[in-house]
Amino acid sequence: MFILINLKAYPCDPVEIAQAADTVTTEHDADIAIAPQAAHIQRVADTGIETWAQHVSPVEHGSHTGSTLAEAPADAGATGTLLNHSENRRTLAEIDASLDAADRAGLSTVVCANNPEQIAAATSLGPDAVAVEPPELIGTGTPVSQADPDIVRDAVTAVERVDPEVDVYCGAGISTGEDVTSAKELGADGVLLASGVAKADDPKAALESLIE
Amino acid sequence: MFILINLKAYPCDPVEIAQAADTVTTEHDADIAIAPQAAHIQRVADTGIETWAQHVSPVEHGSHTGSTLAEAPADAGATGTLLNHSENRRTLAEIDASLDAADRAGLSTVVCANNPEQIAAATSLGPDAVAVEPPELIGTGTPVSQADPDIVRDAVTAVERVDPEVDVYCGAGISTGEDVTSAKELGADGVLLASGVAKADDPKAALESLIE
Amino acid sequence: MFILINLKAYPCDPVEIAQAADTVTTEHDADIAIAPQAAHIQRVADTGIETWAQHVSPVEHGSHTGSTLAEAPADAGATGTLLNHSENRRTLAEIDASLDAADRAGLSTVVCANNPEQIAAATSLGPDAVAVEPPELIGTGTPVSQADPDIVRDAVTAVERVDPEVDVYCGAGISTGEDVTSAKELGADGVLLASGVAKADDPKAALESLIE
Amino acid sequence: MFILINLKAYPCDPVEIAQAADTVTTEHDADIAIAPQAAHIQRVADTGIETWAQHVSPVEHGSHTGSTLAEAPADAGATGTLLNHSENRRTLAEIDASLDAADRAGLSTVVCANNPEQIAAATSLGPDAVAVEPPELIGTGTPVSQADPDIVRDAVTAVERVDPEVDVYCGAGISTGEDVTSAKELGADGVLLASGVAKADDPKAALESLIE
Repeated sequence: MFILINLKAYPCDPVEIAQAADTVTTEHDADIAIAPQAAHIQRVADTGIETWAQHVSPVEHGSHTGSTLAEAPADAGATGTLLNHSENRRTLAEIDASLDAADRAGLSTVVCANNPEQIAAATSLGPDAVAVEPPELIGTGTPVSQADPDIVRDAVTAVERVDPEVDVYCGAGISTGEDVTSAKELGADGVLLASGVAKADDPKAALESLIE
Repeated sequence: MFILINLKAYPCDPVEIAQAADTVTTEHDADIAIAPQAAHIQRVADTGIETWAQHVSPVEHGSHTGSTLAEAPADAGATGTLLNHSENRRTLAEIDASLDAADRAGLSTVVCANNPEQIAAATSLGPDAVAVEPPELIGTGTPVSQADPDIVRDAVTAVERVDPEVDVYCGAGISTGEDVTSAKELGADGVLLASGVAKADDPKAALESLIE
Repeated sequence: MFILINLKAYPCDPVEIAQAADTVTTEHDADIAIAPQAAHIQRVADTGIETWAQHVSPVEHGSHTGSTLAEAPADAGATGTLLNHSENRRTLAEIDASLDAADRAGLSTVVCANNPEQIAAATSLGPDAVAVEPPELIGTGTPVSQADPDIVRDAVTAVERVDPEVDVYCGAGISTGEDVTSAKELGADGVLLASGVAKADDPKAALESLIE
Repeated sequence: MFILINLKAYPCDPVEIAQAADTVTTEHDADIAIAPQAAHIQRVADTGIETWAQHVSPVEHGSHTGSTLAEAPADAGATGTLLNHSENRRTLAEIDASLDAADRAGLSTVVCANNPEQIAAATSLGPDAVAVEPPELIGTGTPVSQADPDIVRDAVTAVERVDPEVDVYCGAGISTGEDVTSAKELGADGVLLASGVAKADDPKAALESLIE
């Protein structure tokens, strides 16, 4: 199971969390990545942990002040990017173009969406993975795998029908090892977490509890 | 073939075009609709022509100043709506919610998109129709059916694979009856036009030339 | 005092409210306008009441599908428009261009903003009026004139310093005649209301209570 | 004169340009800053050159995936930020909140705008500086100081009237030392450049020619 920790704009120390994740990854042979703020990517990637961007813009090189050119996080050490997170919704055309931008820069991609219909739509655009995150569960501490297991099953089915090569991640409310296990049992290939680790007093313990 | 005339924000007389379209529809048993500015829907619908909105917002009743609540165009006489036109791109989540809003108000829907991948994505959301409109051809006078017939064929194939109940329209550059015929031969169920009629000196003649 | 009733996307009968407003305006020599959904402007204006748009787009005639071209509400009978309502925020450049568009179409303008600094900024762009509406008070039923009278006073002072020709309206939480009187005493030239009238069981009584 | 080099999303080596700027700054006692992509800030700041963000989001710490939290560029070494560049327009309320965010993180601020009215508006919000950049001149190589000197004079006058403590920068089309001198003569305290340095074969020579 792939575990992607989205640090959002939380008041955390991204380097401390990255180091904890790197230690846990090594000690437990886990597959963990950290998605910090763009300006923190360099320092997070320098710890050795797999590092992701939280978003890349649908642009090529050019006059795009304030964009996130896909090559910039890649230069700084990122190897993947979230796209269309529920806190950063993008147009269909932009998601499509951001996927092209990420491919160009060699970044893996996961497109977030709310429900199985949107997951099917996102899968049609050819990302490496999609993540089903019902917005009403984000930040609640109630895992989607428990609150609404059918939405995960239906997302997995939708992806299998459109493109079985695309991985399915499960977000929203994941915080314990049990939640990760349920997600896996429902057919997910990974999970997205945020506050469960970013706001933990002991990020290393929080990460270890996820992979037990 | 369904012919949808998008008046955009062109400097035309929407009622004159609506009357011309109504006459042509009656005389030739054609299937024509007019999509005017929201504030013109009432007067256009009053001519008797089938009337569409250019967009409806992804909202329910509530505090949404400046939105286009789906019920408002429907009250004024509209029976359908464009969504996600290349001049009015929306997020995946908004397209999904605008489709729900349109259904709630009894409006038919056509979701526009650039290319076969986006067409497949749009089809997954369950609209009545999708329209393939490569942005680089919009307003050029070069019909997509001639400039890039494969994009239309690939869109038709993509829709058939995802949901064969969904109609496929063909936009961008359509201006003559020959263009409409080519679109039909490529598998399209309708066409979208704008400047070819809205900017014509004689809208009735322009419409008649389309359905010859 | 000018009283502008913003119907937003509320589940109300805009024509019934317009007729009530028209009656109250005539009987009491009041100055009331109604801002319905764009597609309802024609029918609202046909009642004879002063009618406003909730927004106009910063565009000229052209390829702008789904925009609100300023001329369209004007054609349908509108004589003014809200701009930059807290539910429909626009960029500084768009507010500036929408003011030009409104002028071009002969529409009066009121630009909404949150606080005295933004009110000063909006005034610099040369609207007919500005409206101070602290977002945290919108829809609360607590009038800004009572919850935070200083914000109204400071807005009035800011406008006087930048351009004394610009009127100041007071929004957020206004629902009674007493609220209107306090707004006037704080220096406002008008008030913006929404739910207090749009959701009233008896809109005519709600309007009469405002102007007592 | 302050010289701010905006690297946008250009295909340049930000570290090479930063080192050139640092050398020129030292050798000529110049006042030069570099605004790279957010993910490049760390490496640019590590060269010792003054480093700026191209944008910061109007958010506090929290659930804002894909935002640019002002503290993140500051952590990475940035000491200032552009806001509301013509390629990254923001709402009036967002500019206001981004200024608060930048202050919170200790970043200097320059708000861009198109014309003297918008410059007056931006000045009302209390930035450290404003930059007048007529969009039609950006990237043309024709300096605003030559193409439209009145717009610079009027911007300077507008700022003096609203808040004389705010600096005025001049952008769009600046590429030579002569352009910098004209900007200074028109009353500007600094200039914004982009392609003239970012796309130069020899960035150091390009920078030196600016400060002659």
